[in-house]
Amino acid sequence: MKVAKFGGSSVSNAKQIKKVLDIVNGDPERKIIIVSAPGKRSNNDTKTTDLLIRLYEKVLNGLDYQNKKKEIIQRYADIVKELDMDDEILTTIDETLELYINQLYDKPSRLYDALLSCGEDFNAQLIASYNNSQGIPTRYVSPKEAGLTVTDLPQQAQIIDSSYEKIYKLRNYKEKLIIPGFFGISKQNYIVTFPRGGSDITGAIIARGVRASLYENFTDVSGIFKANPTIIDKPELIEEITYREMRELSYAGFGVFHDEALQPLYKDRIPVVIKNTNRPNDKGTYIRHDREVNSDNVISGISCDKGFTVINIKKYLMNRQVGFTRKILAVLEEFNISFDHMPSGIDNISIIMRTNQIKGKESQVLNEIRKRCEVDELSVDHDLAILMIVGEGMNQVVGTASKITHALSESNINLKMINQGASEISMMFGIRVEDAEKAVLSTYEFCYHGICLKNLCS
Amino acid sequence: MKVAKFGGSSVSNAKQIKKVLDIVNGDPERKIIIVSAPGKRSNNDTKTTDLLIRLYEKVLNGLDYQNKKKEIIQRYADIVKELDMDDEILTTIDETLELYINQLYDKPSRLYDALLSCGEDFNAQLIASYNNSQGIPTRYVSPKEAGLTVTDLPQQAQIIDSSYEKIYKLRNYKEKLIIPGFFGISKQNYIVTFPRGGSDITGAIIARGVRASLYENFTDVSGIFKANPTIIDKPELIEEITYREMRELSYAGFGVFHDEALQPLYKDRIPVVIKNTNRPNDKGTYIRHDREVNSDNVISGISCDKGFTVINIKKYLMNRQVGFTRKILAVLEEFNISFDHMPSGIDNISIIMRTNQIKGKESQVLNEIRKRCEVDELSVDHDLAILMIVGEGMNQVVGTASKITHALSESNINLKMINQGASEISMMFGIRVEDAEKAVLSTYEFCYHGICLKNLCS
Repeated sequence: MKVAKFGGSSVSNAKQIKKVLDIVNGDPERKIIIVSAPGKRSNNDTKTTDLLIRLYEKVLNGLDYQNKKKEIIQRYADIVKELDMDDEILTTIDETLELYINQLYDKPSRLYDALLSCGEDFNAQLIASYNNSQGIPTRYVSPKEAGLTVTDLPQQAQIIDSSYEKIYKLRNYKEKLIIPGFFGISKQNYIVTFPRGGSDITGAIIARGVRASLYENFTDVSGIFKANPTIIDKPELIEEITYREMRELSYAGFGVFHDEALQPLYKDRIPVVIKNTNRPNDKGTYIRHDREVNSDNVISGISCDKGFTVINIKKYLMNRQVGFTRKILAVLEEFNISFDHMPSGIDNISIIMRTNQIKGKESQVLNEIRKRCEVDELSVDHDLAILMIVGEGMNQVVGTASKITHALSESNINLKMINQGASEISMMFGIRVEDAEKAVLSTYEFCYHGICLKNLCS
Repeated sequence: MKVAKFGGSSVSNAKQIKKVLDIVNGDPERKIIIVSAPGKRSNNDTKTTDLLIRLYEKVLNGLDYQNKKKEIIQRYADIVKELDMDDEILTTIDETLELYINQLYDKPSRLYDALLSCGEDFNAQLIASYNNSQGIPTRYVSPKEAGLTVTDLPQQAQIIDSSYEKIYKLRNYKEKLIIPGFFGISKQNYIVTFPRGGSDITGAIIARGVRASLYENFTDVSGIFKANPTIIDKPELIEEITYREMRELSYAGFGVFHDEALQPLYKDRIPVVIKNTNRPNDKGTYIRHDREVNSDNVISGISCDKGFTVINIKKYLMNRQVGFTRKILAVLEEFNISFDHMPSGIDNISIIMRTNQIKGKESQVLNEIRKRCEVDELSVDHDLAILMIVGEGMNQVVGTASKITHALSESNINLKMINQGASEISMMFGIRVEDAEKAVLSTYEFCYHGICLKNLCS
């Protein structure tokens, strides 16, 4: 049994929905389908979810919201018309929106979650109804019916472990099932949305729950690129990547598939494939627990992200002082700052974090470190980008570090930091923000195509 | 005013002592001299300090110690005879040893310190007396008279800050001063020895106290080599090195000058020179606060030390969990383990420490980490050597990392870890113990002489 999830652009209009259903109906293994809200139909279009946010704002501010509501209904009306469907569903949509507004206008964050869930929910109902009308037994299943019980904090839904048992029973349905992504129902019976990567998470939870043989994640690209396509002109696609590699790449800016959505899949080793709704025969990128490494595929991907801050601390004879580092980390913990790396010298330590972690608290944090840790010197650098080169077995292959540092050196990129080893599958380089694009370009060309400008040993 | 310290081999016999005094008397700026106990006169000889340890063991075990005592006195008698001195000092030596044994036989750790101090103390008295007899006004100054007040824990002497004021008054003496190294006097009036690098520490404390213009550290080599001479055949000498570089090199096995002895000098920026008693006109190696970096001297030295252990920890979504690393460090702290490096990936962290830090406690420590930190995987690697490449401004020069990793890759050395960045002046590589010598050889030849076996880009 496969679980397939379709993103917003895959279900934005009738034409796209027909493509989706061709894919779904073309494989009897594709039993459970997770759908997003209708996305943009063109560059100037607005996502349904964004229309719903505006509707929420109108209601919250006590303004007339009828036009905004009509705009939303019109999105579905367009689809209904193009699919030549009965339009009674539009009445349901209107009534549901009014119901939420009336019931929840005095609980704004509950109202927000309820209205936002409508984008996915109406789309799932509509698609299920249409597919049924085409003679394919298909059933809309609400998150409540599916057993997606989540924690109650608005916009912060987390699946409750006991849900998986109930979800497993979805296997008993004979029909194809269409489930809306992005939200679950709390024990207090509220609609609660997922914080990040909404529909991807729903898909991953359902795939784990029914113990799917494959979780298909359909988007508008044919898989995951080896490097950012805005930097590299037509980069190659990754054929196969492991969960761990995906995590490390996501960390430094790979956005195709939200890494948090891997979590439910990780433990039961359910493979994922990222595919293109518009080119369903393209192989796509498989994300698995293991992959075979050979000399051609040591490096899976290259990514670079900006927006990092480093705190540099010097203290003479630091490494002799048991507990010094722990004291510093205790300060960070009190300020609720999570850091990413901590390279150290004999008398030095650097703490690397995303700038948003420390923003607004910086001087307080530094003062506290100064006060408690008797440091000799303390400095901060905001100008850091992190380049990640990721590949299973990288540290087994002699010369990988040499290749990469060679490429960077030839491009005249100064390495502020290098961190390799704890993770066997990545090397991290701290570079200046202005070198970020050049770093991706030079390592991509050298690692994948052996192209470098000058010759190190000549 | 200069402070000069002479190591054990420089003061092992009359011939060496005459060399030392030629050096001392040849420069009116050399006012304060720190001397060690007589060292080995040949490869099969025993250091006076080791004879004193054996004397202590005899006394401790209630055995007849007279022969051992005579052996010690004989070391000084040989010197006295060769220098054609009055032998009344030998009576003083005998009486002092007996006095300590009688006074302290029921306080073994006090006796140990008192007996060990004799090696330096008698030598200082003897050398001062001889130089005086040669017509050079010279005065023996005991650590007590010099103001070397230290903490009271046996074998763990630490200078008490208020001592420096008293030491400064040594500037008022007109004579040359000879002070024994290796020990101070506690406020409780006990002799207490320094834990490590004994006479080097005394010299550094005195140099700081009198605000010397230079601290001359005389040994039996003409300075500090750029790499271990047991691995590299006749390595070049370092002309100039900074305190910080010295610290990083000492850490990974450079033994010429104990890095803890740099501590008193560090704050007042007193320069040190390592010189050869047997070739006093050789330039030696200067250790300073700053040095000028040019393209030829970016890398100061290369060292490699074995005996490191790594604990590897994996935990999914580790970097999202505020406080995770601190929890691990708290465990280490409870077991009084100081670690050296902590490279990290997104879901991984490795903790590198000297094997002696964790020996005998390993399974307890691992159990405690497992219990408290809910890790996914935990493993230990005992087979690690640390290669340190040290040089001021290294991370300013583009291509340094590339050069080094190239050299290592050409020698087929797999890099288990790389850590660069916190300290701007070093790069650390974790390699297998069996690659240690090869790593030093290949980086030395490539970094200093541009010699490499194969061509990376060919």
